[in-house]
Amino acid sequence: MKKYNILTIFPDMFRDPFSVGVLSKAVESGFFHINPVNIREYTTDKHRTTDDYQYGGGQGLLMKVEPIHRAVQDIKQKQGGTRVILMDPRGKRFTQDDAERLKEYDSLTFVCGRYEGVDERVVDLVVDESLSLGDFVLTGGEFASMVMIDSIARLLPGVLGDENSPLEESHQSGLLEHPHYSKPREYEGLAVPEILFSGHHANIEKWRREKSLEITFQNRRDMLKTAKLSDEDKKYLDTLGGKKKIYVALLHYPMKDKEKENVATSITNMDLHDISRSCTTYDVKKYYVVTPLKAQREIAGRVIKHWLEGYGATYNVNRKQAFEGTQLTEGLLDVIADIEKKEGERPVVVATTARDSRADIGFDEVSALSEDKPCLIIFGTGWGFTEDVFKMSDRVLKPIEGAGNFNHLSVRSAVAIILDRIYRF
Amino acid sequence: MKKYNILTIFPDMFRDPFSVGVLSKAVESGFFHINPVNIREYTTDKHRTTDDYQYGGGQGLLMKVEPIHRAVQDIKQKQGGTRVILMDPRGKRFTQDDAERLKEYDSLTFVCGRYEGVDERVVDLVVDESLSLGDFVLTGGEFASMVMIDSIARLLPGVLGDENSPLEESHQSGLLEHPHYSKPREYEGLAVPEILFSGHHANIEKWRREKSLEITFQNRRDMLKTAKLSDEDKKYLDTLGGKKKIYVALLHYPMKDKEKENVATSITNMDLHDISRSCTTYDVKKYYVVTPLKAQREIAGRVIKHWLEGYGATYNVNRKQAFEGTQLTEGLLDVIADIEKKEGERPVVVATTARDSRADIGFDEVSALSEDKPCLIIFGTGWGFTEDVFKMSDRVLKPIEGAGNFNHLSVRSAVAIILDRIYRF
Repeated sequence: MKKYNILTIFPDMFRDPFSVGVLSKAVESGFFHINPVNIREYTTDKHRTTDDYQYGGGQGLLMKVEPIHRAVQDIKQKQGGTRVILMDPRGKRFTQDDAERLKEYDSLTFVCGRYEGVDERVVDLVVDESLSLGDFVLTGGEFASMVMIDSIARLLPGVLGDENSPLEESHQSGLLEHPHYSKPREYEGLAVPEILFSGHHANIEKWRREKSLEITFQNRRDMLKTAKLSDEDKKYLDTLGGKKKIYVALLHYPMKDKEKENVATSITNMDLHDISRSCTTYDVKKYYVVTPLKAQREIAGRVIKHWLEGYGATYNVNRKQAFEGTQLTEGLLDVIADIEKKEGERPVVVATTARDSRADIGFDEVSALSEDKPCLIIFGTGWGFTEDVFKMSDRVLKPIEGAGNFNHLSVRSAVAIILDRIYRF
Repeated sequence: MKKYNILTIFPDMFRDPFSVGVLSKAVESGFFHINPVNIREYTTDKHRTTDDYQYGGGQGLLMKVEPIHRAVQDIKQKQGGTRVILMDPRGKRFTQDDAERLKEYDSLTFVCGRYEGVDERVVDLVVDESLSLGDFVLTGGEFASMVMIDSIARLLPGVLGDENSPLEESHQSGLLEHPHYSKPREYEGLAVPEILFSGHHANIEKWRREKSLEITFQNRRDMLKTAKLSDEDKKYLDTLGGKKKIYVALLHYPMKDKEKENVATSITNMDLHDISRSCTTYDVKKYYVVTPLKAQREIAGRVIKHWLEGYGATYNVNRKQAFEGTQLTEGLLDVIADIEKKEGERPVVVATTARDSRADIGFDEVSALSEDKPCLIIFGTGWGFTEDVFKMSDRVLKPIEGAGNFNHLSVRSAVAIILDRIYRF
């Protein structure tokens, strides 16, 4: 029989939850044993103190090291060893993998801190691992330990009755679950989807899979990165809406030069190619190359034409596709007007910068915003935007922070990274 | 008084946890009221059925819609409205922000599903929001609702006694907490850090802040992206270890050309510049430009020299710094030997590709691996690596998947994105 000990100063909290809940039968049948241990019983002073003020000053009381240490030693002796888990917001976040891993232990001991936490020497002396339930604060570890025990115990063979049942749940398949329906067939004007009465098993499975993909796409897009997806799954995901309305513009005027003078910079062949390719890879709706100099637009126009219609179009069809979304434009106002015509509303103009000071929007925020409103992300050339450009912008995107202090990416690399960050959410 | 209703078929589970736990005094004092509602009392059939088989086939029982709907209507009528929250693994993940937001409601109703979940029409008819506790499976929503109530209720004014106390916890400051120590000064050979007895408040605060940064860096590096960090914090973080041992090589031979013939491609000026800048931004230990053609190495060498020692070095010091980590090399074996000499062990050679089929390592895995062993990430030019190069590689990195089906990034953009992904973990 598995033994789940909980070190707490509130052992009575654990009476009801496991004696009258869904796991109570499994407890009665002896699949596992819940053993709340009152830390107070391991104190030696006459006031039976389990907490104290912390050294160095600061609010709140701390759980003392001695009683916890003694309690763990006692459990280890009685149960021939135990895996000690500290309920700790600083720990690794508990996931289904942890539940699967921990179900193998015959004895687990959950240490529940209170107040400001536990004396750090508890970690040094007795704790095997620290686990956190999530990014929120609790009054103590008690409820967190109940959740973990529930999640671990339900995986023990026999506990849930039907042994196959655990396999179908959300978070065990890598996708969120499809909707479920039961009687009545219609309730308050809401009918069960017809497909479920078709008796056609394969069609029902297809419908359920698509709903699973849809719900995961809507609520937890991050899970799609690691879920096992078939080619059919991927095709279906492509048909789902939620497309981001991202536009990119590369400005060649008004820019600053090295001496901080206003200048028009030259269009470069490499900017045309690399950024067109990045924009097409990430499904950017249009890439505008902006310069007021007519001669510059003409040269760039000839390059693009070569790849769209000339010899280049047959030599490299991928490059043709890359340039199909590229457009030469005179000024930023023309770009904004063009997007407004297409989308029926003015885009949110998001300037990019290598400096932190004026940034007011993050990558995740632009990502979310762009599913609602068109967003135009503008990139500079030369030595950066003039003040006028910032004045025309609604928001300024956080700079890319690399690993070191050096931050001098080429505009081509910056576009690639920023699109990757925005489209990964 | 706040009213927290829980719709469940196990109302007794909620007796003890809130009547004998840390929140029991707050409940007694009338700060909030826990009201477990037995869904069974809202059934109308003689068997008092709360669950049923699902339409379309499949294992497990489902919570029926009618009793839950009736129960919520009853609560709404009695309490003048309520915010209905479904405990649902498909929902948004519960965080401290949700606790802060939900503490404002006078009445909350937590709907606890069982078995396979609830009839989807519960969501359509009564649910205001779906929340999930994390990526793990529970037997039902009961324990999850206890955690959320604990997290919300402790924020109500007066509940924790000392009103300032909630502010110091992990996940409220954006960083994980520093270690705490209490009496005795020494226990089992473990002494409390001397600094805490110094009486020097500013030094103690500095030590605590550094420990906070250290623990967050070790356990939850993702939190550092959103935490509010001072310049001093950032400087301290730079001193922490955990530096990745990443090397990058750009191969010009043996590559395939468009006709799949083996060729040596030309070094391009733009590859030299852009990739040097990206590598320096992400603290790559060395960027190798690899070609067996002596004439090519000589030309590239002259370019690099111009920026390191020539006019370029004074014209643009950033470019000088970017090229300091760039090295011209004859072949891949020389690169491996050079790294082995520096690191004392052979690097793990990770090939990159635009195709999925042979990939066997993800970005997060390379990220973790590179803190343990040196990793050499090799990039190709022309139309991709020959089979020989893959044979010399230990692993193949997953390709960058953009948002569409087009995937033809320039090697410059690919290097930038891959480094960004690896260094962001």
